[in-house]
Amino acid sequence: MSEMTERLDVNEVLKSLPSWRPRDGDRPAIERSLVFADFNAAFGFMARVALLADKVDHHPEWFNVYNRVDIVLTTHDAEGVTRRDLDMARFIDEVAAAMGAKA
Amino acid sequence: MSEMTERLDVNEVLKSLPSWRPRDGDRPAIERSLVFADFNAAFGFMARVALLADKVDHHPEWFNVYNRVDIVLTTHDAEGVTRRDLDMARFIDEVAAAMGAKA
Repeated sequence: MSEMTERLDVNEVLKSLPSWRPRDGDRPAIERSLVFADFNAAFGFMARVALLADKVDHHPEWFNVYNRVDIVLTTHDAEGVTRRDLDMARFIDEVAAAMGAKA
Repeated sequence: MSEMTERLDVNEVLKSLPSWRPRDGDRPAIERSLVFADFNAAFGFMARVALLADKVDHHPEWFNVYNRVDIVLTTHDAEGVTRRDLDMARFIDEVAAAMGAKA
């Protein structure tokens, strides 16, 4: 099992991701909800994340209505949270901050 | 109340939208789930719908995970389904068919 797919302790991961919280569910996951200025900004954010997701072949579970985006990250193959989720969460935080999203 | 924002009977609307079904919830809505070849196709579909949504200022509630997109259409101002939802559903059906989505 590589470093990227090793399952990590969610509480440890969240120490470095203060905007994220554990997600209750059938497998360990982390989640964050974001609010943007409007739909254009929300979908622009999603497009940036989608380009990365397609490149690294690791995909969020996400819900959007108007200016709100709810995101869940987990690694299905590992049945939990891995380095892949941590890296994506950090990218999401960077883009969200750059686009003026509210937590 | 204009023709676009008049609340329509969901069962009547669904007679012309065989791929859609009524959504159980707090207000009348219609929903459709789509499966694409992969994430790239699913998000490409979402981008096409997003461009229309931004243009007409009417937005879906949608969830995506990998190649699946679940869409709910309703008109908040009308607390139900209107011509705006019907028009968007028809566009979604056209794009989904053009992109080889499975119902």
